[in-house]
Parts: sequence; C-alpha cells; structure tokens
Amino acid sequence: MAAEVASANPEIYNPRKVLDHPEFRILKADEKPSKDANIAAFYNPQHDIHLVEKPRLKPGLGQVLVHVRATGICGSDVHFWQHGRIGDSMIVTDECGSGHESAGEVIEVGEGVTQWKAGDRVAIEAGVPCSKPSCGFCRIGRYNACPDIVFFSTPPYHGTLTRWHLHPAAWLHRLPDTVSYEEGSLCEPLSVALAGIERAELRLGDPVLICGAGPIGLVSLLSARAAGAEPIVITDLFQSRLDFAKKLVPGVKPLLIEREWSPKEVGAKIKETAGMPLKLALECTGVQSSIHSAIYSMQFGGKVFIIGVGKNEQLFPFMHLSANEIDVKFQFRYADQYPKAIRLIAGGLINLKPLVTHRFKLEEAVQAFHVAADPSQGAIKVQILD
Amino acid sequence: MAAEVASANPEIYNPRKVLDHPEFRILKADEKPSKDANIAAFYNPQHDIHLVEKPRLKPGLGQVLVHVRATGICGSDVHFWQHGRIGDSMIVTDECGSGHESAGEVIEVGEGVTQWKAGDRVAIEAGVPCSKPSCGFCRIGRYNACPDIVFFSTPPYHGTLTRWHLHPAAWLHRLPDTVSYEEGSLCEPLSVALAGIERAELRLGDPVLICGAGPIGLVSLLSARAAGAEPIVITDLFQSRLDFAKKLVPGVKPLLIEREWSPKEVGAKIKETAGMPLKLALECTGVQSSIHSAIYSMQFGGKVFIIGVGKNEQLFPFMHLSANEIDVKFQFRYADQYPKAIRLIAGGLINLKPLVTHRFKLEEAVQAFHVAADPSQGAIKVQILD
Amino acid sequence: MAAEVASANPEIYNPRKVLDHPEFRILKADEKPSKDANIAAFYNPQHDIHLVEKPRLKPGLGQVLVHVRATGICGSDVHFWQHGRIGDSMIVTDECGSGHESAGEVIEVGEGVTQWKAGDRVAIEAGVPCSKPSCGFCRIGRYNACPDIVFFSTPPYHGTLTRWHLHPAAWLHRLPDTVSYEEGSLCEPLSVALAGIERAELRLGDPVLICGAGPIGLVSLLSARAAGAEPIVITDLFQSRLDFAKKLVPGVKPLLIEREWSPKEVGAKIKETAGMPLKLALECTGVQSSIHSAIYSMQFGGKVFIIGVGKNEQLFPFMHLSANEIDVKFQFRYADQYPKAIRLIAGGLINLKPLVTHRFKLEEAVQAFHVAADPSQGAIKVQILD
Amino acid sequence: MAAEVASANPEIYNPRKVLDHPEFRILKADEKPSKDANIAAFYNPQHDIHLVEKPRLKPGLGQVLVHVRATGICGSDVHFWQHGRIGDSMIVTDECGSGHESAGEVIEVGEGVTQWKAGDRVAIEAGVPCSKPSCGFCRIGRYNACPDIVFFSTPPYHGTLTRWHLHPAAWLHRLPDTVSYEEGSLCEPLSVALAGIERAELRLGDPVLICGAGPIGLVSLLSARAAGAEPIVITDLFQSRLDFAKKLVPGVKPLLIEREWSPKEVGAKIKETAGMPLKLALECTGVQSSIHSAIYSMQFGGKVFIIGVGKNEQLFPFMHLSANEIDVKFQFRYADQYPKAIRLIAGGLINLKPLVTHRFKLEEAVQAFHVAADPSQGAIKVQILD
Repeated sequence: MAAEVASANPEIYNPRKVLDHPEFRILKADEKPSKDANIAAFYNPQHDIHLVEKPRLKPGLGQVLVHVRATGICGSDVHFWQHGRIGDSMIVTDECGSGHESAGEVIEVGEGVTQWKAGDRVAIEAGVPCSKPSCGFCRIGRYNACPDIVFFSTPPYHGTLTRWHLHPAAWLHRLPDTVSYEEGSLCEPLSVALAGIERAELRLGDPVLICGAGPIGLVSLLSARAAGAEPIVITDLFQSRLDFAKKLVPGVKPLLIEREWSPKEVGAKIKETAGMPLKLALECTGVQSSIHSAIYSMQFGGKVFIIGVGKNEQLFPFMHLSANEIDVKFQFRYADQYPKAIRLIAGGLINLKPLVTHRFKLEEAVQAFHVAADPSQGAIKVQILD
Repeated sequence: MAAEVASANPEIYNPRKVLDHPEFRILKADEKPSKDANIAAFYNPQHDIHLVEKPRLKPGLGQVLVHVRATGICGSDVHFWQHGRIGDSMIVTDECGSGHESAGEVIEVGEGVTQWKAGDRVAIEAGVPCSKPSCGFCRIGRYNACPDIVFFSTPPYHGTLTRWHLHPAAWLHRLPDTVSYEEGSLCEPLSVALAGIERAELRLGDPVLICGAGPIGLVSLLSARAAGAEPIVITDLFQSRLDFAKKLVPGVKPLLIEREWSPKEVGAKIKETAGMPLKLALECTGVQSSIHSAIYSMQFGGKVFIIGVGKNEQLFPFMHLSANEIDVKFQFRYADQYPKAIRLIAGGLINLKPLVTHRFKLEEAVQAFHVAADPSQGAIKVQILD
Repeated sequence: MAAEVASANPEIYNPRKVLDHPEFRILKADEKPSKDANIAAFYNPQHDIHLVEKPRLKPGLGQVLVHVRATGICGSDVHFWQHGRIGDSMIVTDECGSGHESAGEVIEVGEGVTQWKAGDRVAIEAGVPCSKPSCGFCRIGRYNACPDIVFFSTPPYHGTLTRWHLHPAAWLHRLPDTVSYEEGSLCEPLSVALAGIERAELRLGDPVLICGAGPIGLVSLLSARAAGAEPIVITDLFQSRLDFAKKLVPGVKPLLIEREWSPKEVGAKIKETAGMPLKLALECTGVQSSIHSAIYSMQFGGKVFIIGVGKNEQLFPFMHLSANEIDVKFQFRYADQYPKAIRLIAGGLINLKPLVTHRFKLEEAVQAFHVAADPSQGAIKVQILD
Repeated sequence: MAAEVASANPEIYNPRKVLDHPEFRILKADEKPSKDANIAAFYNPQHDIHLVEKPRLKPGLGQVLVHVRATGICGSDVHFWQHGRIGDSMIVTDECGSGHESAGEVIEVGEGVTQWKAGDRVAIEAGVPCSKPSCGFCRIGRYNACPDIVFFSTPPYHGTLTRWHLHPAAWLHRLPDTVSYEEGSLCEPLSVALAGIERAELRLGDPVLICGAGPIGLVSLLSARAAGAEPIVITDLFQSRLDFAKKLVPGVKPLLIEREWSPKEVGAKIKETAGMPLKLALECTGVQSSIHSAIYSMQFGGKVFIIGVGKNEQLFPFMHLSANEIDVKFQFRYADQYPKAIRLIAGGLINLKPLVTHRFKLEEAVQAFHVAADPSQGAIKVQILD
C-alpha cells in the first residue's frame, strides 16, 4: 500500500532532478533527436519554446513508466510559454516541461505496482494530490484543492509532453480498446468540462448558454448536450468557430457576437436566440464583457459558471446579480472525473474526435506550439503523437 | 387574474354535474355514436368499460374547450377499470371517465382567457392543483402534493379520454408544430419519468439501472439516456420487451431475468452486465423481488428510486440498505415537468414516437382498452386518436 | 377560493386609489392627528418624510383590515426617503407610504375570508405575489421572483407603516400568544436572513463569517447561531456594534476592522480570529472592500453569500475566486420564510427582542425616521408602535 | 508522507499479532492486574467478557502510542459480546477487543510523526480507512465505505478499550483544553449523529422527530437542537428516558408510546404533539413499528433517516411512502465528522456531559459491561476511565 502513496511524494518529481541531471540538455533548433531519446518540449522565463533531451528514468516504488503516445496542447501551455505565468502563484522560473493532456502505453512498472503491466493503454491524470488523510481536502475527496498537489506542466513541475513519462500507478486510467490515445489525451479538457457541469448541477432539459467556441467551449458544448441541455446557445466572435460548433452539435443555436454590442444587448439576443431566459451559462472565455452578457441572459435564479480564466480583477453588475439571485461559480481543475470521461467516450455519448484539427510528431512539438498559438491557423486542438 | 384560479375550483369539475346531466347516457355496446357527440370511455365499480355520451359544455371563466385529438391508455386506467382502486384513497365508486394522457386542439375559450385561441395545439396537464397561496404545497411549488388537486381520471374526476374536454387555461401547454398530438399526449408519462429523474438527481455519466421495460420503463430509459446515464442496464422478464428497448436505445445493456434467480443473484448479474456497481436504479415495476434486485446491484451510497406502484406493504433488506447507505425514494406524479418535456421532444433529445404500437379511433376506445389490458398483444402504448 | 387570489390583484393596491381619494391629505408638521385617523408615514421624490391621512377602507373579497400595532424601520425605508430609489427599477415618483416590517391585529374581514376573525394577532408578509399557475416563478414556489408582486412600501405601492392596513388574507401569519407584535414585525428582516441561510446551505458546525453588525447582520448572526454555525466571526467598523453583537451571542468572535487594512489583510485576520479559514460568509454590508475581505477569508470551495445591497457595479478578485472555487451568491427578499421565522421565535431559538433599541408612537413616525437615519443615535432597530 | 499511510496498513493491526503474542493472556475473574499492565476488555464467540493482558507495543512508522483515558461502551460492544455478530459480515470468531469510543493522552510517537508529542490530548477516530487513491471511496472522501477499513473493535480488529493503544497519527484529533477526555470519547457517537444530520440535510427550523431516547437518540436530539430543529418530538417506551431527554433539551416535546398503539395512531399522535406533520425523522431504534410510526408522522416529501440498526429484513408501508414521496435513508458510521464534533463541543453548542451516567475504572471494565447491558440500571452512557 505504501507504494501508492510513496509515488505521490512531490520530492520525487522535484524538477531539479531533471534539470541537474547530466543527460539533460537543450536541443539545437535544427537538431534531429534520436528515436530513443526522451525528448520533451520545454518553455522558460525568456519565453523560449524548445526541445530538450531528458534521462529516461526507471520507475520507482509505485511508479509506472509510460510511453506518451498522444498529447494535446492546452491554452495554458501556450500561456506559460508566452507570458511566463498564470495568476500570482504559477510562475515559470526556470526551464519547465509542457503538456498535461496525455495518454500512452505502459512500458515498465516499479515495485509494488500490480494493476498495470507493459502494453496497457492509459490516460494520464496529470494532477497528483498528496492523498494523505491529514490533508483536509484529500480526506474529503476534493483533491484538486490539495495544497501539495503535483500538477505536471504547472511550474515548477515538468509536463507530460515527452516521450517517457514516470507516473504514479494510482493516477493512470485504463483506456478501453475502442478509445484511442487521442481521445485518451482529450480526457483532460473533458474532465474540466465535466467537473464544471457536475458542480454547475446542469440537469436534463436545462436551457444553457456556452460562451466561447474554443476547445473548452466545444468540449463543454458536447458535454452539456450529452447531459441533456436544451436549448443550447453558443456565442463567439468568429463565425468559423460557430460553424464548427454547429457541425459538432447540429441542434445548437449559434450567436455571432458583434464587438460593439453592449452586454445587455447581447444578453437580450441570447434570450431571443434561445426563445427563453437561460438557467445556466458555462462561461469559457474569462472575458469580462462575455461574463456580463451571460449574466444578462439569465433568468431569476440562474447560474453563471465560469470555467475560463481571465484578468485578476473584474467588474460585476452587482445589483443585477443581487436583484435576480444569480449565482456566480468557478471551476479549478477537477477531481474524480477521468473514469466518467472515459465511460462517456467509450459509450459513445461524447465524440471528441472531430476536435483534433492538427497533428504533429513529437519531434515537431515546437512547430505544433506555434500553430496552437496562432489564431489564424484556426486550430481547435493540436495534438502531438508519438 | 381571478379567471385563472376560478377555473381551478374543484366544484367546477364535480363529476355529478356530468352524471346527473340529462344528456349523459351509457351507449349500448353496438351503438354507433354521432361524430358530433361528446363520447368518452368510462369505467365503473362493476368493472365495466363502455362508451358514454356527455354534454359538450361551454368554457366558463378561465376555461378552454379542447378537442382531444390523442390520448394514451395508462396502466392506471386499466387498473381502475379492472380493480376499481389504486391504494386506499383512489376508489371507483360510480361511473368515472378514463384517460389523462391527452393532447388536443383549442376549440373555444372562456372569459378571461387571453393566451389561447381556437386552433392552438396543446398538451393537457391532467392534474390541476388549487394554486392557492394558503396551500402549503402549492405555495412552495410542490403542487403534486396539493390536497385539493383535481386529477382528471382519478376518481371521482372524469378523465380526458373524451371528444370535448373543458380545461383550465393555465394548465394547457403549447405544442410546437413539430410535435404531434401523439407526442403531446406522451408528455404525461414522460413527465413522470422526468420528475423521477430530476428528484433522483441523475447526472451525466451515472451508471443507471432501469427495472422493467414497459411504457414507464421505456420512457425512463429514453430520459435517462438523454440525461447522459452510462452505462444503462435494463431488466425485464420478457425478451421481446428487452429487444424493443435495445432497438429504442441501442447502447442499453439488456438483462433477461429468470424467475428462479434470487434477488442477490440478479443484483450480481446486473453489476456484471454493467461492468460496475450501479449508482441509481429507476424502478418501474413496483414488484418486491425487482426492488430487492435493484438494491443488491447498488454501490455504497446508491439510490433506488421507485416510480412503479405495487403492494401496500413490502419487505426491504433493511440491514443491507443500512450497511451500504442506500437511499430509497419514490415518485408521485410530477410538478412543473410539461414545459421541459415538450422542449426535450421538440429539440430531438427524446423520441417517443416508437412507443405508440397500437392506434384506435375514439369510437373504438373500448376495444383499445382490451388490447392495452392483454399482455399477449405486446402493446407498449395504445393511443386513441380523434 | 377565488377570494384568495382576487385579493392579490395588483390593481386593488393601485397607489392612485389612495392618492386621489378625497380623504387623502398631507398633515402639517405640527398637526396632531386624531386617534381614529388612518395616518401613515410617506416619502416623496423631494425627499420629504411626513405624516399623511388616508381613508380607512373596507376589506374586499379575500381581504383583511389589520390594525398595525408594530412596524420596524428598515434601511430601505430610509434609503427611499433620502435617495428616492434603490437600483434602476425601484424609484419614488410620487407620495409613497413607507414600512413593510409590520404586525398587527385583525379588525375586520372581507367576503370569503374564513381563516381570520377580529382579534387575531398576525404578522404581515409584505410581498404579495400573483400566485397564478401561469406565472413560472409562482408555480415553482420561488415567488419572490414574481414579476407582478405587490411589495408594500416598494414604489409605487404604499407601505404598512399606517394605522389601518388592508391585506390579502393568505399573506398574514398567525402569531402565537407568546410572540409579541414587536417580534412579529421583526419576522420580516428575520425572513431575509433565514432565506439567505437556507439558500446558503449553512449547516451545523460550519465556520461562518458575518460581515456587518447592523440590523441584518445581527439578525443573520442570531440565525446562524441558531443553525449551529461555529465558529462565528463578525466584523464591523464600530466597536459599539461589535459589543452589541457579543452581548447578543456571547460565543461570537468580533473583529474590529481598521479602514486602512487591505482586504487581504482583513481576510487573514478573519481566519486568525476564527482559528481556521471560513466556509461561508453572510455579507450584510454590500460594500466592495468588505466583500473582498470575505472572499479572502474563505477556504477553497467557500461561499460568499451577499445579503446586503450596494453599488450597481463592483470589482471582484476574479482569479482568486476562480483558483479557489469560491461561490458568490445573492439574496433578494424571501419566499416561504414567515412560518419558520415565527416557529423559531416561539420556540425560543431566536430571540429578537434585544434588537429593538428605540420605540415611537405612530404619531411620532417622522421623528422615528430621523433617529433611524442618524448613525450617531446608535439605533439598531427603531420601532413604531400603535 | 509514506508514514501516514504505512500506518494505515491493515496488516499492522492483524489481530493475531496480539493473540499469538507470548504476553497475551486472559486474566482470571478475580485477578488484580498491575497498574502498568496493558489490560483490555475482550469478548469471544462463547459470549464471555473478560479482562486480558496484552503487550504494550512500540509505535511504528506513522504511529502514536496513546494512553486511553476514557472509553464509552456502545450498544454494539454489548451486542458483539452477547450475540457474537451484527449482520452477516461482522462476526466474532475469536477473542476480540472491545471499545471504539475513546480519547486519551499521547505517550510516544513513532517515526515520521511530527504533529503529535507526548502529553497531547486526543480523540481517537476508531475507523482507519486505506486512504489509497486507487480506492474509489477514499478518493471521493466517502471513506466510511472503504472496503479495507480497519475499524477497531469490529471483528476481527481489537478495540480501544485498553490501556495503551497504538493508532495512526493521522486519525487522532486534538482536544482543546476545555474538552474533557469523557467528552472526547463521546465524539464517536456524536460523529454518528452528526453524519446522519448532515446527510439528512436537517436545516434550521425543520420540524424533526427523534425516535428513541437512548444514547444515539439523545446525541441526535442534542445535535438536532444545535442545528436549529423546531419543533422536536422525541418518542420512547419509557417515561424515565423521556424525562432525561426533557431535562437535556427543555424545549423538546416528549411522547410516551404505548405498545398497543398502531403505527398510524402513533404517527397521528406525533403530528399532534408537534402541532404539524414532520419533515424529518431521525430513527434511532431500528425497530419496524417505530420506523412505521415515523413514516406515518411525515408530511408529503418528508424523510425518514434511519440511524439505528435492526432486523435483516423489515416491512415498509410501500404505497404510503410512494403516494407521499417519503425518502428512506440510512447512516453507516461517518466520515470527516470528528473535527466538527470537537468544534461543536468546544464552542458550547452541544453539551454531552450529562450523558455519562456511570463511570468505572479500567480494572472494572467487565462490571461496566454488565451495567451497560442491564436496562434496569437506567444507564445512558457507561464510561471507563483510566
């Protein structure tokens, strides 16, 4: 039993172990790495993104060595690269490995690992909480709040966008044969959406607004529809993204937002598009004007559930919220969503496949980042396969 | 405003007004009624089922005259006919009109009715609570508990299986053009299932058991799938009914129950079929052995939600419930489900059309009852159209 | 039955009926009204507060004439007088009667009223929703959201601070002999606090913060303690108010706020005072800095429940809320709280008596308003007795 | 970190380690044990209860040696002694140590224990779950459902009614100086009641029924009152127990049950005593007739929450439950209640002191068991102090 928890010890994942390792080195821009090299995409405080070579470590007590087969690039990966931080607590201070949306194949297992064997196909849950009974949040199952969590790719911990990743056995999730590695890696953003939908208490037949038709918005759209939301309105500033949404979920009602509309106007148009005031918004942009619009589209007692991140301080239409008992809630990562995510994909209730619009080899990870970061490329989800 | 509530006055629907009316008469078995006659199917304490002719009344204050275009026969209709009672409080003591699953067309509106006009297509919510602020249950919105509710077809109130039905304007629900009268009438059993699913707190990705593949079981199945339940296991004693369920929802996992299996054995087989213990059962049979099986298929903390009605007293595996914190909950009719039901049908999330297996003209209502009551006919839902 | 709803017709309470009545007149500042005169305290758009004389009307269908025996002055009464509006929708445009925290004695009942007789002692629920089944919010029991609600003292409807008040029978609540008229009138602010506590889901043993030791803060404090909150921290800018709170609930932990402290500092001090991060804040000031302080005192997953009203737009520490999944919720009036409020007072769980610090005769209502409006008087609750 | 979980390994608490230890022996009935001996009260399948002498072990990795200073005798201790089993899974098959309601003083700490030192005063949480992230129930915080839980005194694990007890550091809870060891040991039954009240969603002002005025009933009564239940009715077959309840919570409304009353009659009398139908019953007897009575006292939508254990199978008034949407729920032990329990005691919201009616020395433990088992002694809670 100690194996399970031993492998959750943050010290094991101390990023200096990699950075100070004699085998660690930054590859030159035009260098071709070997097929056996444990390469990875790292960012640093100078806003570089480059390939590095890391040691391929042996799995220790309770650990599993995974060959990462698919990794999606998340907006936060791009943000850490380009801005070096998210909020006040997550700051890039050194070379740091990217990627936390990954799935792969078990290569080797460490001591005490009995549930996995080489060849098993797994999704990697990138956040590893301490699981100690003395941790108030782990004890009550709200482990995304664990203050000692190791979240791979959140500085200083290196990410999973690498060839060989060491992971605690208890935080891998088995993929059925019918679920691809690509889908397995998409379980990560799906888990965010599912956590939001669970805590937002979305119920069958609820009229729902999705703000933003980017990756999280689209995953939320698929999830909201799987949960029986009806009607669903989705908003965005770009028609192409709304078209993508409409193709994904034909029943959705898209609304193209004009930048000059006021939030009250947008709110009214959302209600008109839905044919009724909304009960719940899944806000996936984190932008103040979008949040205000969502608020103005709500019925009395509605709920604006904010999944997107945004500016540190934002204005809210306080008295409108008060006079209409509109709840404002937020999502931070997720807890206990992976098994459900895999179940819903395997059962055919949520089809994530169309979301992957661009694919790259691991050796092309830097190029992949540039595509993900460039809005003109129209990527929804960029994946790196190995 | 008074119009709305005046029309909810139970005295208005006093069944004696019909029975004592000079135009009321029981038709002879072979009698051909006129096309303009307000005929209806009535049962009585002698377990007869026959057509009657009733007056076609003028809508009063707040009332609407509806031409009933489709009515489904519910198990309770058959039960009242054949057994004369359900439980200790609902007893057939005189001639009583059947039917409460109806939709139709507005013919004429009474004084104070502004929201309807002739030609409007409506689903009829058959239970009309008092809506008085002094009624504790109406005041808090749990109006299915209103002690003064008039529920058409629950003795002594006559039902909606008739040609011309008078209804309070506030308890009609508009049908979009894309929703047929047949579907409109199916909103009634759908409302039962939706109320159960709402109060059972079924959530996206919950593993769910449906006990019984009859009309309520199938409507619950459709609703559970629309709400994102996965996996779903459905049980029944008849393969043909499971085949019907499988055709309706291809992803469902059917389990044919053998009568000699013990509830613990059935519980184990359900878990095996699902691939995991279940979190929620929607029990649609009301039969003790089925309820026990559902209980034994639950995970710790599971919930057995009983929609079916059954024997007055039943045994429960008390210590198993206790040691596993399994909740037992029940549904009695529904409150505020019609708008959601119509929305889900119109939005294409729930397709009820395949459930109607037999159709009869209003003049053939007695024949329809006999088909509905005969298991060998294999009817799921028998409808009477006019 | 129609009686109940007829009396909820907003037209009945059309304020022009009073203002245009030949007996209506504004009393001179030094005029002594007769003991039988139906005097009342009115404000107007010119920010006057004065006594008026109104007709004493006969109760109509479903109505009751109440001799108002006790009325508390609410902050909103003072606000309407001095500022002429609250938010964008509630605006004083003419002479308007004040007062909505009232209890009194039944004098006479109108047609159809069977539950009351002269001499009955009642609390007056000042908000009268439409109760129509076609009203979505009344139908589901969330009647504080009824768009057609008549809320006495919210412009344009005249208030209950008068001698003889006509009220719908269904919206009076019986006071046990052990509950005084003063306590009966305090059921109104208590209902606000109870609604907040119910919707905030305060549970036994929750660590709770109360922001502000004014009337609503103190009523919330009493209610939170009755609900088993522990520990409870209360904040205020004035030591005298904290002393009052401490005397009221000896177990409470007061924290005097210094104006120069930042919200993060206050948050830290609140946690230190409590000995732990808080799970719930009942924010009773509506002031931005206080709300921020409450947010920074929360544990991950905490809830800031805002009862106080404040500026139309306010800044929120968005990313802190997001990274800590802190819910922000609001209360607007209340629904179905009076019976519970009376039960808790009668049962001795909530003792509101100490809150009444100043008492005036009805003839002295204007003086009472001036005391209520002057912070240097240190009034908690000013009551007007007749 | 591994220390925490290492100490939760069930193998460490393998009861054979004690039974096979050379120092283990059963004391003779009249033998006087030494003051330094690690004596304990054991039962066996032959329904003996006797003192034994056990080794005093050294604390291992993550463990703490506690001098148990106070232990309450629970009904289940007596039941295991006299009946040898509870339900089908908890069976006395060998000598087994009793006691799980304990508090004590830290004597010595093992490796890796940093939060405790000799002299610390602690309540002992007797159930130690596996805390592994791979355990579905531990992961979501519902650790009372952990299939690998070691619950001291539930066979085969020895209990805490001993002088020196080894316990995992993470499952001890600090007692403030103002909370006595007696109160610390009473945190165990209090945790059961608090878990019930939490899961029953008891809210301020709820009308509540407590069935049974034994130890769990009285602790539930104190907790329900602390949570603001009003009115509270308590039932029992013995006037003396009701008198005790009335002294404990003067506001409670006692109802003495006559054995010849039918459940429907009892239900009616409960409603009459309360002055209204009840919303929640905390059923603390597990007896069928009492449960039925509770059911018949409920309002539509009420909840019968069963804390007591009883016969394996029991009849329920199925149709009454169904027609009134009455939920039946159960409690099995508790999760995450100790910190709250201690907080409520320390804060003065729950005063458990009067519950201890009999006190014995550890050497007199056998005598204590006989008093606890004899109803004629009128004991509420028997405690053993050392």
